[in-house]
Amino acid sequence: MTPAPTGQDPWPHAARTVEQHAAAVLGLLDGITLDARFVPLEQAGGRVLAEDVVAGVQLPPFANAQMDGYAVRADELRDAHDDGEPTLPLTGAVPAGAAPPPLPAGTAAPIMTGAMIPAGADAVVPVEETDPARFPDWLTDADPQPPAGARVRFTAGAAATEPGRFVRPAGSDLARGAVALTAGTRVTPAAAGVLAALGRADVAVRRPLRVLLYSTGSEVVEPGLPLRPGQIHDANSAILRAALNACGTEVVTARLVADAPAALLSALDADVRDAAPDLVLSSGGISRGAFEVVKQSLGGRGVAFWSVAMQPGGPQGAGLLDVGGSRVPFLGFPGNPVSTLVSVEMFLRPALAARFGAPARPRFRAALAEPVTPLAGKQQIRRGTLTATAGGPVVRLVGGPSSHLLHAAATADVLVHLPVTAEPLGVGTPVTVTPLD
Amino acid sequence: MTPAPTGQDPWPHAARTVEQHAAAVLGLLDGITLDARFVPLEQAGGRVLAEDVVAGVQLPPFANAQMDGYAVRADELRDAHDDGEPTLPLTGAVPAGAAPPPLPAGTAAPIMTGAMIPAGADAVVPVEETDPARFPDWLTDADPQPPAGARVRFTAGAAATEPGRFVRPAGSDLARGAVALTAGTRVTPAAAGVLAALGRADVAVRRPLRVLLYSTGSEVVEPGLPLRPGQIHDANSAILRAALNACGTEVVTARLVADAPAALLSALDADVRDAAPDLVLSSGGISRGAFEVVKQSLGGRGVAFWSVAMQPGGPQGAGLLDVGGSRVPFLGFPGNPVSTLVSVEMFLRPALAARFGAPARPRFRAALAEPVTPLAGKQQIRRGTLTATAGGPVVRLVGGPSSHLLHAAATADVLVHLPVTAEPLGVGTPVTVTPLD
Repeated sequence: MTPAPTGQDPWPHAARTVEQHAAAVLGLLDGITLDARFVPLEQAGGRVLAEDVVAGVQLPPFANAQMDGYAVRADELRDAHDDGEPTLPLTGAVPAGAAPPPLPAGTAAPIMTGAMIPAGADAVVPVEETDPARFPDWLTDADPQPPAGARVRFTAGAAATEPGRFVRPAGSDLARGAVALTAGTRVTPAAAGVLAALGRADVAVRRPLRVLLYSTGSEVVEPGLPLRPGQIHDANSAILRAALNACGTEVVTARLVADAPAALLSALDADVRDAAPDLVLSSGGISRGAFEVVKQSLGGRGVAFWSVAMQPGGPQGAGLLDVGGSRVPFLGFPGNPVSTLVSVEMFLRPALAARFGAPARPRFRAALAEPVTPLAGKQQIRRGTLTATAGGPVVRLVGGPSSHLLHAAATADVLVHLPVTAEPLGVGTPVTVTPLD
Repeated sequence: MTPAPTGQDPWPHAARTVEQHAAAVLGLLDGITLDARFVPLEQAGGRVLAEDVVAGVQLPPFANAQMDGYAVRADELRDAHDDGEPTLPLTGAVPAGAAPPPLPAGTAAPIMTGAMIPAGADAVVPVEETDPARFPDWLTDADPQPPAGARVRFTAGAAATEPGRFVRPAGSDLARGAVALTAGTRVTPAAAGVLAALGRADVAVRRPLRVLLYSTGSEVVEPGLPLRPGQIHDANSAILRAALNACGTEVVTARLVADAPAALLSALDADVRDAAPDLVLSSGGISRGAFEVVKQSLGGRGVAFWSVAMQPGGPQGAGLLDVGGSRVPFLGFPGNPVSTLVSVEMFLRPALAARFGAPARPRFRAALAEPVTPLAGKQQIRRGTLTATAGGPVVRLVGGPSSHLLHAAATADVLVHLPVTAEPLGVGTPVTVTPLD
C-alpha cells in the first residue's frame, strides 16, 4: 500500500491554475452529505438550513399601517376637502396588536405603526399631516375613546391621499405557501428574523462537517511544550482550527505527525475509524524534499499532488483518500504557515461556502498604496491592510512575499490578489482583495 | 421617575446625522470594561485578547532553509565553479527538526525546507539547480549518510548564489521581546497561528459583552405560539440575537414587553439586578405614535431620542440608562425588522468592532446594476445582491425601500448606502456597500 519513496518521486506534481484547483476542491466535497438536526431558533444563527422553509403564513399576516396616523377611506377624505371642511369625525383608536372593528363610514381612526388596518379603511394619513401635527391627549387615557363630537383636521395636502397610501398589504413581503428560505441557506440575522416571523420556534439545520486535522513535520512541537534546537511550535493546527471553526465545521481530532510514513498511516487508519471524518486536512509533507511524509504515505492511496500556479501555497495535495476500505475527501496543504492560511482562503473556504453555506468573503477592488511588481506565471497572494478613503478602499502591503512571515500576516486584514504579470503596478492600480476575519 | 406621556411629547426627537449617531453610540460603550479569563488556545479563535502578547522567542527561532536543496558557503560554491568543477563533496543531510553539526569547510549538506541552517553555511541552493535536479537515492535510507566520495553537481547559474539566498534569518518575522499582538486584537486564524508559534497553550481573552434584549410591542408574540388577529411573531429578537452572537456578545436575557410602561420598568429593574448586563438593547417603542413604550418609560431615565437622517432606522434612542441606582448603556432601535437590522449594521456592529474587537465589515464600492433615485436629506440604506464581474462587483437592489420587507432583506448579501441626494443615479454608478453575514 505504501510505496517506498525513491529519488525518482513516484508522485510528481502536475501543473494547475488557481481556478482549476479551486474547482477540483469544490468537486471533492460533492459526495459529502450532512444530515439534519432540529435546533431551537435561538441556536440556529450561523448554522445552515437542512430544509426548504415554506411560509405557513403570509408576511405581513394582515394589512397594517406604515405610519402613525389616521386610517381613512381615501375617497371620503377627498370629499371632506371638497366640502371645504378638511376634517373627519374620529372613531376609536387602533393600537398595534388589536383586532379593530370595521371603520364606520365617514370617520377616521387614529392608528399606530404596525396596527391592523380596519376593514373599510384603505389608506393612512400620517399624523404630521394633521393640524396640530400630533395625536390628541385623550389617546393616552387608559381606555382611549374619542370625546363626543371629536374630529381630526387634515392639512390641505392630505386630500390627495390615494388608496393604499402608507398601507403595507398583507403578503407584500412574502406570500403564504412560498418557499421563504431554501435548504443550504445560512441563518443570517435577517434569515433568523424570517424564521421567527413565520412562527418557527425550531428549525432543521445541517450537522457540522467533521474534519480530521493533521499537522506534519518532525520539527513541529505542540504549543506549551519546550523546544529543542531545530524545532518550532506548531502554528498550522491553530490556524486551521480557527479558520475551520469560523467556517462552522467541527475539528473532531487534531494530531501532530512526525515525518514517518508508517506512523501517519497507522494514525490515519485509527482516526478515520474512530472519528468518522467527512474531510481529512493535513499541512506539510507535500513538497519536493527528500522527506515528504504526506506524499510518501498517501501518494498510493488516491491522493494526487499538484503544483498550483500560486505563491505562496503552490504545492497542493487532493483526492479521495483510500483508508480503511472507504474513500474520504482529503486536502493536503503546504507546511509554511502563510501557505496554509492562503490555502484555506483560496480553496477550502470558498468550497465550504459554496457547498455547505460557510460565510463567503466577497472579493472587491482596492487601490494599491504603493508600487509592486507581481510574478509572471504565478498568482502572487500578498497580505495587506485596508484604509477607507473617499475614493474607495486603499490597500497597503504588509510583510514581504515569503511564506514564513506569519506575524506580518496577522496584522493584515485582506489578502491581495496580484495579477499574473511581471509588469510593475503603479500607485493607485486597482487590485482584487479578499477580507480576512 | 416615569413621566406620564402627554400629547405634547416630553421627549422630542432631535436631529442627527448618521455619523453623529454612530459616534454617540461608540462613546456610549466607552465606560464598559470586560475582564479577562484564560482559555486554551483551541478555544481562543474569534475571541479578543485581554493581554499584550510579548514574544518570548524570536520567529523563526533559528535561521532555516526556505527551499529543499543544499546548504553551502556561498563563496566556496563560487570557488568550486571558478575551478571549472561545479561540484562540492557532500556531508550528512539536515532534515527538518534536527540540530545539525557545523558544515565542514568545502562541503554541501542536503537540507530540507524549514531545517536549521548548519553553522558555517550561509545560503541554500535549491535542488532544482543541481544535476540531476533531484536528491540522491541514499537520502531516503533509514540513516542517510553520503557514500564515500559522493558529490553534488550544481548548475552553472547556481555559482551566482549570494550569502543569505533562501535563508530565513532568525527573528526575520518577529523579534524576541516585541509585542506580537496587542490587547483588544481579535484572534483571527493568523493571530492564533502567531500565539501557537510563540508556544502559547493558553491566552487571556476578554469575557463576552453581556446584553439584555427587549423586543417591545403589544402586537408581538413569541415564535411557536399561535397568533390572534392583529398580532405578529417577534422577528426582532431573532435578528438581534443572531447578530449579537456573530459579534461575540452574549445575550443574557431576552424578553418580550407589551406597550405598558409600568411592566417595562418593572422587568428592567429585575433584569438589570439579576443579569448584570453591560448593555441594554430594545427594539420598538421609540417613534412618534401615541403608545411608544420605550420613550414613555425611559425618557426620564437618561435616554434621549433622535431622528437620524437615515431611512430606514431613523428613530433612535440612546443614553446611559438610570436603573436600580446604576447607569447602563442603552440603545433603543426602531421596531420594524429591517430598521432593526440596519441599526445593528450601521451603529452597533461598528461600535462593537471598534471597542471590543467584533468582526468589522469592510465597506467597499460596487457598481449599480440599475438606476435608482436616492432621497434628499436622508441617507437611504437599501439591500442588494452582489455579482462579481471582471470590472469589479456589481450590486442589484432587492426589495423596495420599505422597512417591513424582511424576506427581501434575507435574500440580500449587502447593505447599499445611497448618497444623500434626490438626483437619479444611473446604471454603473459606484455606491458604497457593506457585506451582511
